[in-house]
Amino acid sequence: MASEFDIIQRYFDNHADGVRLGVGDDGALIDVGGGRDLVITTDTLVSGTHFLSSEDPYSIGFKSVAVNLSDLAAMGATPQYVLLAITLPFSDEAWIERFSEGLYSLLNRYGVTLVGGDTTQGDVLSITLTAIGSVNPDDALRRDQAISDDDVWVSGLIGLGAVGLSIQEGTLRFSKKDEEDFLLRLHKPNPRVELGEKLAGIANAAIDISDGLVADAWHVADESDVQIVIDFETIPTHRVLNSSRRDQNIKNCILGGGDDYELLFTANTDAAEQIGNIARELDLTLTRIGKVRSGSGVIVRDDGEELTVSFQRGFDHFAKRK
Amino acid sequence: MASEFDIIQRYFDNHADGVRLGVGDDGALIDVGGGRDLVITTDTLVSGTHFLSSEDPYSIGFKSVAVNLSDLAAMGATPQYVLLAITLPFSDEAWIERFSEGLYSLLNRYGVTLVGGDTTQGDVLSITLTAIGSVNPDDALRRDQAISDDDVWVSGLIGLGAVGLSIQEGTLRFSKKDEEDFLLRLHKPNPRVELGEKLAGIANAAIDISDGLVADAWHVADESDVQIVIDFETIPTHRVLNSSRRDQNIKNCILGGGDDYELLFTANTDAAEQIGNIARELDLTLTRIGKVRSGSGVIVRDDGEELTVSFQRGFDHFAKRK
Repeated sequence: MASEFDIIQRYFDNHADGVRLGVGDDGALIDVGGGRDLVITTDTLVSGTHFLSSEDPYSIGFKSVAVNLSDLAAMGATPQYVLLAITLPFSDEAWIERFSEGLYSLLNRYGVTLVGGDTTQGDVLSITLTAIGSVNPDDALRRDQAISDDDVWVSGLIGLGAVGLSIQEGTLRFSKKDEEDFLLRLHKPNPRVELGEKLAGIANAAIDISDGLVADAWHVADESDVQIVIDFETIPTHRVLNSSRRDQNIKNCILGGGDDYELLFTANTDAAEQIGNIARELDLTLTRIGKVRSGSGVIVRDDGEELTVSFQRGFDHFAKRK
Repeated sequence: MASEFDIIQRYFDNHADGVRLGVGDDGALIDVGGGRDLVITTDTLVSGTHFLSSEDPYSIGFKSVAVNLSDLAAMGATPQYVLLAITLPFSDEAWIERFSEGLYSLLNRYGVTLVGGDTTQGDVLSITLTAIGSVNPDDALRRDQAISDDDVWVSGLIGLGAVGLSIQEGTLRFSKKDEEDFLLRLHKPNPRVELGEKLAGIANAAIDISDGLVADAWHVADESDVQIVIDFETIPTHRVLNSSRRDQNIKNCILGGGDDYELLFTANTDAAEQIGNIARELDLTLTRIGKVRSGSGVIVRDDGEELTVSFQRGFDHFAKRK
């Protein structure tokens, strides 16, 4: 629903005092005079849209923190503070306690402090977190800094969250053990906080994969005024998906699935060794999946063909290049 | 629903680096090293709880900013940035445009910049704003700094928002012209931003009147470990309510109505002249309504009696002092 926010931004002045980067990236960058820029982001999870009302409140609390810390990670920021606004359709202490445990497990992991909040009664359970971090102004990762000839990288494995959703919805089935892997990724994604901090000053552009690999690559290409070419075969995914990666459902999960919260980033080819060292330090798979070149949009190379994608029409509407 | 938030805060560490004041005041105070403290606050408005779905979207946008700027004003802060998270059950450009106009009319009045947001689809219209301002650390107004023998002041007129709500619900009626006054206050409250800025460094404690005059005075008394005594006769209200201020409905609106977004503050008696000057500068009524003394809770003096109030049981459960 980007168009609604576009209208809201109609009169938006991006050049206000102290605002280095406003609406449009994963977070805003604000110079408050303390040497490091503030990075601020907000995300809402709504029952029925982002989670089922029957879901374990632990994972709802966990995920509401994860999606916001993921946005800070995509800016290269160190998370520091969150505010929590929660709308509750019920008063259930056991539910709240379990929700709190999930929330705090991730806040405590990163030493993040809850500094404010608002508890409201309403008909639908809804959670809005605002997360605040900081970054050296020169090192902040942005969507609009990808440079032609950069390598395109992703962290971790891609498509697992979307496969988890398909399992939850009953449209895909795997062994019980494998299904647990996918559902864990869907319900308790790990925001790549340490990776974002280490990439600050090394990567040129970054985004977290929340809308889908191709859609998020498209955001980077569009904001940076470049073209991103992705080799489908190189995209890392779960071992049980590898042999079936050309199955249309699985392919859609890999290219279009949104709930991975991995980072996609671009970096100069010279940075490959440093990036390899970061991968070893963090014990995290970092994989080159493509290149940046002049042009526009996203192209997926698959089986000898180059397919273009129209972001407006969605990830699954590919067309052969003319 | 304070108890839910209490549980969420169970493991809350108020002493994290840089956090001067965390959960519990109108906003958090954070030292980010730039000389001025950041003040951060978040508030949610939900359809059916805080406004009717049929309400003019202009006033919904206006009020969602007003309630957050009011919290910043109660801290003595200058507002600077907001983030908007909105959940929409529909896609209606005309609605969004009118909502934006209301939102921006108040943002522009105070030179506040929208720096981020999130637009979500969901079943119930819900708006969460996070507002960020700044204040000199020594001047920040807090709930916990009221001192025995302080005067207790309020800005503007009290009870109008609650009377507006009663008119909207059909339980009170006035002339058409007067009803417009009350409904305007309910739908488009004026946050006391300039007053908050001028009181910073002069007042000892402050809060905005969002829960009701007595309930909010109780917050100050409780946090400051003092007693607040209010003279009911001195509380300023709309001229048409004056003759009927002892009518129980009207009295409840004045003592317990929550939607005024005026400031209640305490200050040393010596500051009365400065406060008088501020009132003239801003062309805003500032009225002494009571005193701070040692003890606890809130006492309302009315018609020769001293009535105590239990905040837990609500504003309208008064009892004669023993």
